[in-house]
Amino acid sequence: MKILSAISFLLLIITGCSISAEKGKDSEIKPTSLYNFVVIFADDLGYGDLGVFGHPTIHTPHLDQMAQEGQKWTQFYVGASVCTPSRAALLTGRLAVRSGMTSKNNRVLFPDSHHGLPQTEITLAEQLKNAGYVSGIIGKWHLGHKKEYLPTQHGFESYFGIPYSNDMDNVSLLAKQDYSSFWTSEARKKTESFNVPLMRNEKIIERPTDQFNLTKRYTQEALLFIEKHKNQPFFLYLAHSMPHVPLFASESFEGKSKRGIYGDVVEELDHSVGQILNLLKNHGLEKNTIVVFTSDNGPWLVMNSEGGSAGLLRSGKGSTWEGGMREPTLFWSPGNIIPGVVSELGTTMDLFTTFSALANVPLPNDRILDGVDLSPVLFHKKESPRKTVFYYRGDELYALRLKGFKAHFKTQDPYSNFYQTHQPPLLFNLNVDPSEKFDVANEHPEILDAIMEIRLEHNKKMIKGPDLLRDRG
Amino acid sequence: MKILSAISFLLLIITGCSISAEKGKDSEIKPTSLYNFVVIFADDLGYGDLGVFGHPTIHTPHLDQMAQEGQKWTQFYVGASVCTPSRAALLTGRLAVRSGMTSKNNRVLFPDSHHGLPQTEITLAEQLKNAGYVSGIIGKWHLGHKKEYLPTQHGFESYFGIPYSNDMDNVSLLAKQDYSSFWTSEARKKTESFNVPLMRNEKIIERPTDQFNLTKRYTQEALLFIEKHKNQPFFLYLAHSMPHVPLFASESFEGKSKRGIYGDVVEELDHSVGQILNLLKNHGLEKNTIVVFTSDNGPWLVMNSEGGSAGLLRSGKGSTWEGGMREPTLFWSPGNIIPGVVSELGTTMDLFTTFSALANVPLPNDRILDGVDLSPVLFHKKESPRKTVFYYRGDELYALRLKGFKAHFKTQDPYSNFYQTHQPPLLFNLNVDPSEKFDVANEHPEILDAIMEIRLEHNKKMIKGPDLLRDRG
Repeated sequence: MKILSAISFLLLIITGCSISAEKGKDSEIKPTSLYNFVVIFADDLGYGDLGVFGHPTIHTPHLDQMAQEGQKWTQFYVGASVCTPSRAALLTGRLAVRSGMTSKNNRVLFPDSHHGLPQTEITLAEQLKNAGYVSGIIGKWHLGHKKEYLPTQHGFESYFGIPYSNDMDNVSLLAKQDYSSFWTSEARKKTESFNVPLMRNEKIIERPTDQFNLTKRYTQEALLFIEKHKNQPFFLYLAHSMPHVPLFASESFEGKSKRGIYGDVVEELDHSVGQILNLLKNHGLEKNTIVVFTSDNGPWLVMNSEGGSAGLLRSGKGSTWEGGMREPTLFWSPGNIIPGVVSELGTTMDLFTTFSALANVPLPNDRILDGVDLSPVLFHKKESPRKTVFYYRGDELYALRLKGFKAHFKTQDPYSNFYQTHQPPLLFNLNVDPSEKFDVANEHPEILDAIMEIRLEHNKKMIKGPDLLRDRG
Repeated sequence: MKILSAISFLLLIITGCSISAEKGKDSEIKPTSLYNFVVIFADDLGYGDLGVFGHPTIHTPHLDQMAQEGQKWTQFYVGASVCTPSRAALLTGRLAVRSGMTSKNNRVLFPDSHHGLPQTEITLAEQLKNAGYVSGIIGKWHLGHKKEYLPTQHGFESYFGIPYSNDMDNVSLLAKQDYSSFWTSEARKKTESFNVPLMRNEKIIERPTDQFNLTKRYTQEALLFIEKHKNQPFFLYLAHSMPHVPLFASESFEGKSKRGIYGDVVEELDHSVGQILNLLKNHGLEKNTIVVFTSDNGPWLVMNSEGGSAGLLRSGKGSTWEGGMREPTLFWSPGNIIPGVVSELGTTMDLFTTFSALANVPLPNDRILDGVDLSPVLFHKKESPRKTVFYYRGDELYALRLKGFKAHFKTQDPYSNFYQTHQPPLLFNLNVDPSEKFDVANEHPEILDAIMEIRLEHNKKMIKGPDLLRDRG
């Protein structure tokens, strides 16, 4: 903090203007505008899959240490329980239903999808550009693979990664083989079975992607990005492809964990995090960098032991039960973020709002944003400004959390067409009953009333974007 | 370690004899005979109920720090999934079926039970007395409440606590009220509803026990015990009555946690652990004291939100699924025990063997012990000598673990008479599948064969003690 103050003071003299224009309370919780931001986004990692979140046989010493040096958030959510809308929410700070990145029939974008994230959306990369940030994405994009939707068209200076999920362009699908039997076949273990392209900026540089070394190469690219931009404010979005099936680890990790290939893959991610934090420390950048680790949605349970674990939470990926949308989340910035366990509410959409505040970029005022500024929690261990969480499945609001309580209006198995409508809604006290086992609707009619009112208000103001996942083929 | 070596050297000069008589490898893993031992034993605490084991809303900063400074064991077991046999196993280093502390019909001792732990058994307190240790028990005994079975008859110099569970001598039972409706009644919240006696040594000093202040008073007694005996080797067995129902917390903790009364109670236990570790540190005793934290069995799930959570493990108290017998376990001795996460196998019965080795007391050679010496793991982070775990329900072996794999011969709901016999047994790879979801018996016939052979050998050598839980009333 002292070094930061000194730098701020120097810049003040050099540039003749104050970095933090605001005074008083607000400027207190914005200690600097020079923070770099690194968001490490795992894919399909379950709430219970890290050591520090209780997994018995996946060893994650670097993430455990990151938790120890930073904040471990135990009630942190994503914007949707599947890939495309979750990523849209993170990058726009808005529920995906607003940008059209949700659909009644297709839950994510596919290789034959026509559209992607509209240009009218403002991504975190574009937002931070207003404060002179350089942004890079390494990893999975999944917000449109056609040229006009690629990251380089959305504010990122550089892109290295795959445009959609690593199980897409699956040769078994092309051959119209049975998808589920494919996953127990030997073909699943071959990287050639997935004709996924690897891209640099707007060009395909490899196809199929060598998935065995994907985590390793992402990490190398991330380290290079930090080295290259260490003297200017940067935003690095490292969206790992793993542990989404098919699972592949590099030679140093394959067969090394007790948890099988799923554990190997997560332990390689852990190693990757360690390398990144170490590099930041080696350059003294930990003093003005905020690193966030989380995942896009819960574990893909139908993949059996190749899917992860939501720990004590109910259900997983694809579901609006907690296991689908609550993620193991860490915030790290030694000397700035106060270490500890945080059971306040937060979501990935809050990163847009929080980072904008820290970078002193005004929020766009021509649209509804769904984020809040988490600075009071990060820097002062105060209450979170967030009191609600909206759980969407596709374009429909299935559940709503108000403080400790969550009401389910509708429930549905992650990958089934069968659903149940609940009238009155189911009500769970998540602080007391994180596994959503004991319906307390009868005991708390007043809480249910409050939630129904918030829902009404939300629906009234909701302007849904057009369904952009619909058109395919 | 330097201080310990210096003390050892001084003692060597003064007494003229070597503390560690053995040479070579063995003496390496017995750094001193002057260790004090503190075993903190919670009651019905689930695998998932501590922050460091993944609970989202129970805050346990002291236990989290203990884990950080020590070893967090993620595959540590008790000898049985209910109270009496679990405690017998811990204190004798033997499966309870050997001492008669198991039964076909009564799973634990009751206030009208006739018997208790036989005098022929050697408790850890008696064993350590051979090396000049003074032993004290504070908390729940549950191995016989008649005079001849009390702790003071089993090697403990002092006893402060309750003789059986805190829900026994329940006034609703005396009034033959419905037991389950009692738990949702206001009576459950009154300490007078449980006519449990509080004892000092062999005398009842209070009845009913003031349960609101039980954890607090246990802690005060524990601190006094340490103060009193700080200049001699001691063994403190602090067997908390909580979080076994009925749940009571003292004024400073009631209503303070997000997790309701269950969380209040666990957070008070956490505070208690913090006080004990602090006192040890203040006296420099952390350098030659080993503190173990664990619980007697899994969470009592039928108590709904007043029962705990087994996290990602299946089932709970009363069951031979993992949730019944795997416990959140910490070993702590800064400077001696190598910090880290340990996914090796261990059990509470290993404490008898390990502590005996560290105190240089030969193991009794007239009986079968079920423990191993965990020193290689504690002091050298090597492989555990333990390769098997035996899961008994009453006097019957229901399941057996060999390294990563567990076979279930029989399964039964914790509190139901319905059971299933499995032929072939169910087989789970617990390292890969800790939640026991995917039977792999067909894929690993050779492992099943190996387990069946160990079972045969075990049964052949097994001499069961007479059923001492049977006689009541």
